[in-house]
Amino acid sequence: MKLATLPNGTPDGQLVVLSGDGRRCVSAAAIAPSLQAALERWQDTEPALRALAARLDAGSCAEAMPFEAATALAPLPRAWQWLDGSAFQSHGDLMDVVFKIEKKNDPTRPLMYQGLSNQFLAPGADVPLPSADDAIDFEGEFGVITDTVPMGASAAQAASHIRLVVLINDWSLRRIAPVEMKTGFGWIHAKPACSMAPIAVTPDELGAGWRDARVQMRLEVDWNGQRFGAAHGGAMGFGFDQLVAHAAYSRDLVAGTVIGSGTVSNSDYRTVGSSCIAERRAIETVDQGEARTPYMAFGDRVRMQARHEDGRDGPFGAIDQRVVQRAKA
Amino acid sequence: MKLATLPNGTPDGQLVVLSGDGRRCVSAAAIAPSLQAALERWQDTEPALRALAARLDAGSCAEAMPFEAATALAPLPRAWQWLDGSAFQSHGDLMDVVFKIEKKNDPTRPLMYQGLSNQFLAPGADVPLPSADDAIDFEGEFGVITDTVPMGASAAQAASHIRLVVLINDWSLRRIAPVEMKTGFGWIHAKPACSMAPIAVTPDELGAGWRDARVQMRLEVDWNGQRFGAAHGGAMGFGFDQLVAHAAYSRDLVAGTVIGSGTVSNSDYRTVGSSCIAERRAIETVDQGEARTPYMAFGDRVRMQARHEDGRDGPFGAIDQRVVQRAKA
Repeated sequence: MKLATLPNGTPDGQLVVLSGDGRRCVSAAAIAPSLQAALERWQDTEPALRALAARLDAGSCAEAMPFEAATALAPLPRAWQWLDGSAFQSHGDLMDVVFKIEKKNDPTRPLMYQGLSNQFLAPGADVPLPSADDAIDFEGEFGVITDTVPMGASAAQAASHIRLVVLINDWSLRRIAPVEMKTGFGWIHAKPACSMAPIAVTPDELGAGWRDARVQMRLEVDWNGQRFGAAHGGAMGFGFDQLVAHAAYSRDLVAGTVIGSGTVSNSDYRTVGSSCIAERRAIETVDQGEARTPYMAFGDRVRMQARHEDGRDGPFGAIDQRVVQRAKA
Repeated sequence: MKLATLPNGTPDGQLVVLSGDGRRCVSAAAIAPSLQAALERWQDTEPALRALAARLDAGSCAEAMPFEAATALAPLPRAWQWLDGSAFQSHGDLMDVVFKIEKKNDPTRPLMYQGLSNQFLAPGADVPLPSADDAIDFEGEFGVITDTVPMGASAAQAASHIRLVVLINDWSLRRIAPVEMKTGFGWIHAKPACSMAPIAVTPDELGAGWRDARVQMRLEVDWNGQRFGAAHGGAMGFGFDQLVAHAAYSRDLVAGTVIGSGTVSNSDYRTVGSSCIAERRAIETVDQGEARTPYMAFGDRVRMQARHEDGRDGPFGAIDQRVVQRAKA
């Protein structure tokens, strides 16, 4: 099942169900006013949403309309909680190079931080940031959205609460990232609002693209129209089931919690490229003695889209955004 | 003005306005269904809430009822964002001792992490946690609640968005805190849900207890009925105006953002005591070569209340809670 959210003047937007081909949609207002509301009573809403999708695919929805991804909001335009992992080992190793940080973390524990969740930017929205001197970077990653997960859930229990899969651009300000890491407190300035691709999908919708609680697809990243990377989501050192269970150790996870994979990265990064600039700069530092690729300038665009192993377009639609100077406060 | 939230079956609860003496209250349902809703249009709701408070104090509210703090929820039972500072230098210095962490942070930048905000526990609610082996600790601190703050706001601009002041217990699991700090990613396991005292107040309500964007009151902390500390809130190295501006560097702050002071702590800690156990243990380590005070056991209670410099009770009411073993997932 494919879900999206269209603007309706409310912060949570209007939930719509998409046809299997993603070209048409129908309002799910009769089932739930928003995706957040649907997730809060998923046992009831999921069957109703699936039945609506079936009617849409059967051509028996009079209210069906074309789905225009360009007008869509993030599927979850705001969430009560965004916990972002860093589950790709090759990314972590390279970032330690670029930040000159000697982390002493326990490799048996997933890395995870809590980020800004009250706003997920629309997939085509401009991204306002304070200064290009902050070393603006994109970070392509996959994420999952859970319903309510009780404190202490095991990975197996957690797996059953993974309701949706999404594609996320976790915007990052790299100048500030190591400054904030050195405090041990995590990131505030370095992690502004993230963006989401327009379509959230149930794991079954991915078919062979969902296995071992990982997205088995490539994440294609283009920067100003040039291919930058196409790393594979299957290389996570911890699956999403383990990340969700980690998150729930000492807290109940509220319905609509978004859990991120961290930047998609593969150990053959010299072949597949990267999902963020900082990682390419680390590779340049290792290979050429210094970082050569600059960070983003205002006006730059980044596009992200997932691709199935068999070459088909992934189901999430595309993030395609421009970074701009923020308005004066 | 004093505000509180009573249970009404919704996650946000029912906003009530209190009388000046805090003994009576009246539903603010006709003005805003919840404190969150009131903060989202504070320019309109504040005058209406103040007018209702005046009518209550004048004895002309037929719907007035006794305010029973024991039944109150947190004033903001959930928030879109909780950003907790660590603005008391003596606390930071002592925590570096207890965690054996050599932080290399820039002293001109406030310390701040993003924590769990989707649940603030009621002031009298039991606090379920996974294990007493995690070194359960309380952390008494003050906090402010803002309305919408635009990205890039200065400290002066930020000050005008501080709408309410609250008293918070930031529960902490000390065994895990240094493990998570070493990653640079901040805390997930070590920071479960916080609690709030029942009454949120506008800064003017504090009178002399609000100056330099700091709470000029003592925070009395009792552990199992024994006085543990009474440190003064005025010793913050950064005022709340600076903390709010820091938080808003690269993000708009959503209405209802909660910003914490960090554990209230004074440099004469040997006289005034501490607002968390970890700090006392650090003092013991410095003075006696080892920490002697254990962390909390299940069944232990902690009580927190603010006190004006002239000896009057503070306006927030009390947090008085018991830690318990969480139910099996």
